[in-house]
Amino acid sequence: MKKIGFIGLGVMGKPMAKNLLKAGYALTVWNRTKSKVEELLSLGATGASSPKEVAENSDVVIIMVTDSPDVEEVILGPLGVIEGAKPGLVLIDMSTISPYVARQVAEKLSEREVKMLDAPVSGGEMGAKEGTLSIMVGGPKGVYEECLPILKVLGKRITYMGESGMGQITKLCNQVICALNIQAVCEGLILGAKAGLDLEKLLQVVTAGAAGSCMLSNLGPKMVKRDFKPGFKMSHQQKDLRLALSFATKLGVPLPGTALTNQIFRIVEAEGMADKGTQAAMVAMEKLANVKLTQLR
Amino acid sequence: MKKIGFIGLGVMGKPMAKNLLKAGYALTVWNRTKSKVEELLSLGATGASSPKEVAENSDVVIIMVTDSPDVEEVILGPLGVIEGAKPGLVLIDMSTISPYVARQVAEKLSEREVKMLDAPVSGGEMGAKEGTLSIMVGGPKGVYEECLPILKVLGKRITYMGESGMGQITKLCNQVICALNIQAVCEGLILGAKAGLDLEKLLQVVTAGAAGSCMLSNLGPKMVKRDFKPGFKMSHQQKDLRLALSFATKLGVPLPGTALTNQIFRIVEAEGMADKGTQAAMVAMEKLANVKLTQLR
Amino acid sequence: MKKIGFIGLGVMGKPMAKNLLKAGYALTVWNRTKSKVEELLSLGATGASSPKEVAENSDVVIIMVTDSPDVEEVILGPLGVIEGAKPGLVLIDMSTISPYVARQVAEKLSEREVKMLDAPVSGGEMGAKEGTLSIMVGGPKGVYEECLPILKVLGKRITYMGESGMGQITKLCNQVICALNIQAVCEGLILGAKAGLDLEKLLQVVTAGAAGSCMLSNLGPKMVKRDFKPGFKMSHQQKDLRLALSFATKLGVPLPGTALTNQIFRIVEAEGMADKGTQAAMVAMEKLANVKLTQLR
Amino acid sequence: MKKIGFIGLGVMGKPMAKNLLKAGYALTVWNRTKSKVEELLSLGATGASSPKEVAENSDVVIIMVTDSPDVEEVILGPLGVIEGAKPGLVLIDMSTISPYVARQVAEKLSEREVKMLDAPVSGGEMGAKEGTLSIMVGGPKGVYEECLPILKVLGKRITYMGESGMGQITKLCNQVICALNIQAVCEGLILGAKAGLDLEKLLQVVTAGAAGSCMLSNLGPKMVKRDFKPGFKMSHQQKDLRLALSFATKLGVPLPGTALTNQIFRIVEAEGMADKGTQAAMVAMEKLANVKLTQLR
Repeated sequence: MKKIGFIGLGVMGKPMAKNLLKAGYALTVWNRTKSKVEELLSLGATGASSPKEVAENSDVVIIMVTDSPDVEEVILGPLGVIEGAKPGLVLIDMSTISPYVARQVAEKLSEREVKMLDAPVSGGEMGAKEGTLSIMVGGPKGVYEECLPILKVLGKRITYMGESGMGQITKLCNQVICALNIQAVCEGLILGAKAGLDLEKLLQVVTAGAAGSCMLSNLGPKMVKRDFKPGFKMSHQQKDLRLALSFATKLGVPLPGTALTNQIFRIVEAEGMADKGTQAAMVAMEKLANVKLTQLR
Repeated sequence: MKKIGFIGLGVMGKPMAKNLLKAGYALTVWNRTKSKVEELLSLGATGASSPKEVAENSDVVIIMVTDSPDVEEVILGPLGVIEGAKPGLVLIDMSTISPYVARQVAEKLSEREVKMLDAPVSGGEMGAKEGTLSIMVGGPKGVYEECLPILKVLGKRITYMGESGMGQITKLCNQVICALNIQAVCEGLILGAKAGLDLEKLLQVVTAGAAGSCMLSNLGPKMVKRDFKPGFKMSHQQKDLRLALSFATKLGVPLPGTALTNQIFRIVEAEGMADKGTQAAMVAMEKLANVKLTQLR
Repeated sequence: MKKIGFIGLGVMGKPMAKNLLKAGYALTVWNRTKSKVEELLSLGATGASSPKEVAENSDVVIIMVTDSPDVEEVILGPLGVIEGAKPGLVLIDMSTISPYVARQVAEKLSEREVKMLDAPVSGGEMGAKEGTLSIMVGGPKGVYEECLPILKVLGKRITYMGESGMGQITKLCNQVICALNIQAVCEGLILGAKAGLDLEKLLQVVTAGAAGSCMLSNLGPKMVKRDFKPGFKMSHQQKDLRLALSFATKLGVPLPGTALTNQIFRIVEAEGMADKGTQAAMVAMEKLANVKLTQLR
Repeated sequence: MKKIGFIGLGVMGKPMAKNLLKAGYALTVWNRTKSKVEELLSLGATGASSPKEVAENSDVVIIMVTDSPDVEEVILGPLGVIEGAKPGLVLIDMSTISPYVARQVAEKLSEREVKMLDAPVSGGEMGAKEGTLSIMVGGPKGVYEECLPILKVLGKRITYMGESGMGQITKLCNQVICALNIQAVCEGLILGAKAGLDLEKLLQVVTAGAAGSCMLSNLGPKMVKRDFKPGFKMSHQQKDLRLALSFATKLGVPLPGTALTNQIFRIVEAEGMADKGTQAAMVAMEKLANVKLTQLR
């Protein structure tokens, strides 16, 4: 059984690492903030003093951090994975980052005979805990097949999308669709609210028909209750939109709706609500229309 | 059993009228284009020479035409329903029209002691044929309850939304969400396409996760095959968006995403594809990005 | 010297009518709100009890009201111009209205041998007072030439644009450009303000260079001082954008920037500032960015 | 008289360097592409083999390259300015780059006792040739005053905007306004064109009134003639918009119009016209409306 290293024990990473422990894997862990490591140590993981040390003790290293610079830092930075990597090491980056950065890092690693998969996930904290994440994988097909048993511990739907970067690209397409679906819910609800509709009934009707979407089912009821507790944070949604828009810029693809939605969501950030869940997008529409949903009941 | 009149035997109206005949109702029918009446006559309906004559022979008159002016014409115009209506007649308008026009017409009818429900539908030709439409009803609650047996012949989910106009408003909220969900699919797919993703795989992955929506499931595969056969026509979607935007203007609600989508869909109309299905929205994105999905395989 | 009738003595109409009196024309006037007529009567104009009576006493009738329905009402409504018009009467509509309505009204008038010019203006209250308006004229060329001496009393640049409706279309193009130029100023200034630039200096620099525009010169300094006193009212700007967008819809021309700007300006209306000047557009950007320019000094 | 170094002899840099020679300054020059140096050598400039060598021979080094990475490279890269800089050297970066990069570079240089001004320009090739550029300067005020005699050789309006980065921020505000003014012209003209207006007349009328702008005067006539010869290239405009949008992201300022315009201009890039002038923005609107201006005459 392969020895696994795990870097990044945040909201997503910690439950994923636990699932690997439960599945019987020997696990070496590292996190920037030391305190987050403790629970895993108590469950039997081994602590490391640096990503380098994680790499020295692992056959496969999984990374689950926030953005492209974080990935670059823990892999290529001082005391990074690359410094401790033996030839043949496999690195699985499950963060959502720039497809270009994913490819560049993969190339640099390949010079050291380290192989890399980009394997971002969808499904949120719940999916991480329950091991039901959807995982979109890019990289060498053989490496993907070799790692499949590990990925199956973490997720339910695992799809091989093609060469290096293709996992990240799939995730960005996913986030583009999610963002516009969220904006759709906001515009439909604010219109109904201002017109005096009973929003619970409105949600029932639209959810069951052609307007139905995962975002409507999950976020619509929270918007109506003004429950902004984060499932997926607005700041992370915005980071993903920036990645998508920047990638689209390089490809020369206009994405007018996504660009507009990115700007509208920024209103939420300007309100100081970047750490709320994406359903806080409704706050932007409330500002535009100068009402709050609660005033309308 | 009530005698029913049916005005408007188009793609939606004809199968709805047939379902009423099958359910045993006596039916008097009228359509602007005469030829569309014949099939219903052969099935046992009675023809009328005008909306007025339909009204004279009915307890309940159902209207299923295209837009606000059509509704005004068949009800209030020369030889319109109002001229043949006995006090106590019930009129059910199942077209999608302006909530303001719905209310104005209802008021004028109430002066003649004719009661009106606005009851637009969602579910398309398929729903009309199978009697599984979703129906959103506005108007006096007693009248709604009185008509429920008839509505249940035509649809499956029937929701009472409130006073006159509330059915139309619900439908417009529904269409706003649908429009942005369609744009979401277009932007996600064009990005993936330009980046070289396998679009069938992309559809599988995004459909099953947080990006999932009815529009993605129904229209995504058609977009990828460039199958633009109409389910719901782009020209009708655009009419509904115009109604929604105009209604939002009167309420003072900004709908930036809807307004932008309305403009983008216009590119499809400028291409001469207004009579194609709403999945032809992808043609707009193809123009913006200067590629066709088929070139990208 | 022709006898002139003048209908609509608002902010624009009253100074225009005064200029005609000063130029020596006999003037018969009517206004919906009676009190606005008094000043002109004291200057020598004759009052009339209806648009019909204005028409009975005039060779040329000038109309300066707000929107399409107002024009239809005073011309075609009860006691309207058409009822008092002798064959050969010339009607000059200087309001900004729908090009389609302009053409329809012109056609109806031509059945009575009344000729019509559409001649909307640009230049604001100042231009109306000083007789320096820019006037864009559509209608029969001969009628235009016949009326030129009168138009020259009211404006400085008078341009014949073509057949009936072409004056209105020119005005709508003008308003589309103005709206986006205003949004340009707002976005440039809010960016500079949030970044801590000295806004007076910023205005100086951008006004003198490639970013220069009439809107920047006129509205920029007012925005920076938060002086929202109306020159041209936001509600009128919005009415003109609705006309432009509706006209573009009929022509099948997508105007994405105009549509977006129309929605953004609606935020100003939702703030209850529709009667402020168009420079209040900055209030929308302030809301989006959650700051006020004054907080930033 | 100070010895000046000049790095970057492109469309803008070469005429600027010539003006310095004409004014009597001793000039050491370097350019990535060697061939562009020759004309200046023949006029009396001294060639250098690297930015480092330029710095070694100069009291003031002016940089005029394309984007942030270029500036970083010639200053901080191998054989960069920083390697040859004596304490007290002044560096004037006249490129348009990220305000954040400007500040970072200035900080790194200050550790070596090298002072830096950011001094981007507006006015195009013409302004560079005629020495009439508008120059927006950020950096230490004393350094600005010290360099003013040199800046006055290159431009006419020179404005001190504040601390390091403020010059770049001013330029980005300028470019935001320009972009939306260009889109304004495109939308106004395409509407007029589709409606059948005489575009020369339309230009005359709108140019002289409230819709007037530098962009309308300069680019409108070129659009109508479909003359896309570059003054300022679309690719450079897009680079500047990306800088502005990215800067706004960091500040948390929503710029919806700018974001949309950036996407619309991308259509021009997707058409392979990135090297045309910004007036090629009209090509995007032509695509959206499915017409060419020439077809409409």
